[in-house]
Amino acid sequence: MGNGKKGSKSDRPISKQQYNDTLEQLQVELNNLARWVRYYNKRVLVLFEGRDTAGKGGVINAISECLSPRQCRVVALTKPTEVEKGQWYFQRYVEHLPEAGSITLMDRSWYNRAGVEKVMGYCSDDEYKRFMKQAPVFERLLVDDGIMLFKYWLTVDQSEQEKRFAERLEDPLKRWKLSPIDLEARQRYAAYGEARDAMLKVTHTAYAPWTLVDFNSQHLGRLTLIRHLLDRVPDFQVPAESLVFPPLDRKAAKEKFETALKPIKPIKLA
Amino acid sequence: MGNGKKGSKSDRPISKQQYNDTLEQLQVELNNLARWVRYYNKRVLVLFEGRDTAGKGGVINAISECLSPRQCRVVALTKPTEVEKGQWYFQRYVEHLPEAGSITLMDRSWYNRAGVEKVMGYCSDDEYKRFMKQAPVFERLLVDDGIMLFKYWLTVDQSEQEKRFAERLEDPLKRWKLSPIDLEARQRYAAYGEARDAMLKVTHTAYAPWTLVDFNSQHLGRLTLIRHLLDRVPDFQVPAESLVFPPLDRKAAKEKFETALKPIKPIKLA
Amino acid sequence: MGNGKKGSKSDRPISKQQYNDTLEQLQVELNNLARWVRYYNKRVLVLFEGRDTAGKGGVINAISECLSPRQCRVVALTKPTEVEKGQWYFQRYVEHLPEAGSITLMDRSWYNRAGVEKVMGYCSDDEYKRFMKQAPVFERLLVDDGIMLFKYWLTVDQSEQEKRFAERLEDPLKRWKLSPIDLEARQRYAAYGEARDAMLKVTHTAYAPWTLVDFNSQHLGRLTLIRHLLDRVPDFQVPAESLVFPPLDRKAAKEKFETALKPIKPIKLA
Amino acid sequence: MGNGKKGSKSDRPISKQQYNDTLEQLQVELNNLARWVRYYNKRVLVLFEGRDTAGKGGVINAISECLSPRQCRVVALTKPTEVEKGQWYFQRYVEHLPEAGSITLMDRSWYNRAGVEKVMGYCSDDEYKRFMKQAPVFERLLVDDGIMLFKYWLTVDQSEQEKRFAERLEDPLKRWKLSPIDLEARQRYAAYGEARDAMLKVTHTAYAPWTLVDFNSQHLGRLTLIRHLLDRVPDFQVPAESLVFPPLDRKAAKEKFETALKPIKPIKLA
Repeated sequence: MGNGKKGSKSDRPISKQQYNDTLEQLQVELNNLARWVRYYNKRVLVLFEGRDTAGKGGVINAISECLSPRQCRVVALTKPTEVEKGQWYFQRYVEHLPEAGSITLMDRSWYNRAGVEKVMGYCSDDEYKRFMKQAPVFERLLVDDGIMLFKYWLTVDQSEQEKRFAERLEDPLKRWKLSPIDLEARQRYAAYGEARDAMLKVTHTAYAPWTLVDFNSQHLGRLTLIRHLLDRVPDFQVPAESLVFPPLDRKAAKEKFETALKPIKPIKLA
Repeated sequence: MGNGKKGSKSDRPISKQQYNDTLEQLQVELNNLARWVRYYNKRVLVLFEGRDTAGKGGVINAISECLSPRQCRVVALTKPTEVEKGQWYFQRYVEHLPEAGSITLMDRSWYNRAGVEKVMGYCSDDEYKRFMKQAPVFERLLVDDGIMLFKYWLTVDQSEQEKRFAERLEDPLKRWKLSPIDLEARQRYAAYGEARDAMLKVTHTAYAPWTLVDFNSQHLGRLTLIRHLLDRVPDFQVPAESLVFPPLDRKAAKEKFETALKPIKPIKLA
Repeated sequence: MGNGKKGSKSDRPISKQQYNDTLEQLQVELNNLARWVRYYNKRVLVLFEGRDTAGKGGVINAISECLSPRQCRVVALTKPTEVEKGQWYFQRYVEHLPEAGSITLMDRSWYNRAGVEKVMGYCSDDEYKRFMKQAPVFERLLVDDGIMLFKYWLTVDQSEQEKRFAERLEDPLKRWKLSPIDLEARQRYAAYGEARDAMLKVTHTAYAPWTLVDFNSQHLGRLTLIRHLLDRVPDFQVPAESLVFPPLDRKAAKEKFETALKPIKPIKLA
Repeated sequence: MGNGKKGSKSDRPISKQQYNDTLEQLQVELNNLARWVRYYNKRVLVLFEGRDTAGKGGVINAISECLSPRQCRVVALTKPTEVEKGQWYFQRYVEHLPEAGSITLMDRSWYNRAGVEKVMGYCSDDEYKRFMKQAPVFERLLVDDGIMLFKYWLTVDQSEQEKRFAERLEDPLKRWKLSPIDLEARQRYAAYGEARDAMLKVTHTAYAPWTLVDFNSQHLGRLTLIRHLLDRVPDFQVPAESLVFPPLDRKAAKEKFETALKPIKPIKLA
């Protein structure tokens, strides 16, 4: 299935069984974390950055699929409109900051400017410099306001990236992840690395540190990242609300349909 | 894992293998559909309604996980704020209608008013009646504007629902799906059915018909729903853009880290 | 002063004194209306349409200047962005519908499509026809939801319009109101009238009627429109909250400035 | 008329004639400024703060009434919703920052926290302290991004303030400006002054300085403030686009009405 759920073909350091079992345990903890977030009206913001094919979408799905979509939101902005281009650079992201009791996962973020925009020349030098100056200041404001901000950068070697590009070309479920821009990006693997290091130098701060996670194995990368995220939050135990379901006081009903509309026939399996 | 990915324990009409294979084929078609949507700037809006535990979240994930989060958005609104309560009822939903080239999946929708609000007495009789009058008119406006609107209602018998409530109580990954309100909802299984039928009577229209899908088996329900959705859209083939990845003109690079920051150690597996 | 406050030079059917005295009385009533709106959580929406130079801005100012900007909002949208162009036509207006207890004045509105867009060819024939079909339906939804919707169309003869165009060219305070598009619009005076009549035919409804007001005199037009608006709302008396200001229990203080910052010197008058 | 247009009764240092003539000249300059803003895609943000009755609304109207409502927006936020209270404090203001080519006038602003909220105890001590730390940092981000930020604080002595409270009680056009909270505010005149000074100490910065303007005379205060604002912007001359209106090539038309709908009868003047 798409969005990296299967991991890539070369994903062999751990068995599928190990992956599933460990992920399930981590997802239980994520649920505890989410309950704690709700109970104490915390706000959690997690940024996911990294190379093309590194596996941002996959790890985001692994987190969000086990949480309430009403509490945990995935934000994946498209390119800015003309009006947005004329605004304060951070404005369109501010709109999506987590509200009290909620968790926001950003699939790419304001760091576009220090990565793809820098490397591909989509922003001016002034814009780039201003971003590098403003990002840590902006993040400081959020953190001091009580937003719990976590920043992950997913690394992957080029040989692995090449395999994944090849898979994406072949696999119709991954084809949407490819665009002509990727052709260019491959040629600039080193430049992306340099841009990342320049970015880390100024935006890796005490209050909003970066965490680099090796995603040469997507399965191992996902587990590693989620484990790390959980360990960043101290002691998030809130007991689940006690609920007692008494026995039904009548016979369990079947669906009845008073209108002519009935459930459609099930799919015919091959 | 949560959000119904595993389906429920009683989910046995098809094998896991059958489910995975068929889902993968459907997801390939969903990707073709998405490419067509983008190519022709179509707008697709799918509403998911149904009983508690029926499996809305699970089928939404099965669709969204294989598509670009920049194109396919899941909208799961929380309860309205005081300001929103004073607005035109449909206003807060209008904001999330799909834009050109995109797909929006609504996990619950404006039909809250005809379901939970009606049954639990959260809206006045006037508000309910007005909704029943306005919903088909509102939807007509959207459809005539070119929005492709699909409405699914997921059915499940009470015996199955009871099993799932019990699983949710026990399974820490499903515990978030339970709330005290569910206790009340169980007692009103029949009332929910009646509310649904009343709603179908006036909102099942030629231009925006409802489709009922049996989710007593979540796996079969998901496949059935997705197959149906795909069949509603005529002939959505757009060839994938041709891309050629020439061989790299240099040796594949490894990640190099110029700052002290290195990838963290991988998780220790048990 | 700009925005028609002075009215136009040819504005002579009533004396300035008469205008000011009558407007002041009407503004007292507008304040009573606004108090009633707040008290009963009503929602008032007034659309202002009409020919270029007719005086929309002037009458909107005459209303809004005497009310709280926190209660009475003026909405004057600019042209749609690319994203907005791909949305349901009414979507960007829905966002600005009045909330409970408030009044919204729209300087132009969704009727752009039946006026300037139709006459100047900015929309397709299909879009125009769809608008003509949808507008009355959309407005019905709003009105049935309890929004008090008033629609005014300001008329002006071409000889008067010509004078005002000439004034706008000369008067630096009115110069911003002119654009090259006005040159074209003058030539199409008749076409605009026909477009208006076509629009009236289908959108003048029992629940959301149009009111035409002669603005060949802007002063008289403003008073006439406001009087009419007030008469549309039955009996909006709510006594002002009683407030007693006891004498200060100390000597009235003077501003004191503890920092070096002091009020700047007053302007030097010529 | 309301919103301080007449100024207060005690407003006698300059004649009405002087006021009108000078204001008109300033408004011409404001129009030039606005053209420059549009031409160069500048963004102008003006904050208006000050004591109750000082005259924020009046000076805002004097500026906005002569400019295009599509370019110059007045932002007067109501109190935050529950959701907004759980967000980053500045978030709801960020949404209203000026876009390219536009001017935003804020009638009160984020400085609420350092004024009324501090004095009346509406925020916690922590929130207050955090605001005092964040405000200058936040403003620096905006200014460095190119937003032209101007901050005005309107001063008024208590004896004058008392007169205006009395007028507001009596004048039905000003009655909406009074609320029970004003009763309390009168008693805390000194505390408001101290809060202002504390605020000036940390938020009067080189890049975003405050300007204090004496509004004991509202007319003089308005002219002084607008003159100052204009002087802050260097050399904003952009010639108005040249437009030539050729003579109409036909006889000026009169409004003709094809439907039964005709302009309503003009108001009967007393």
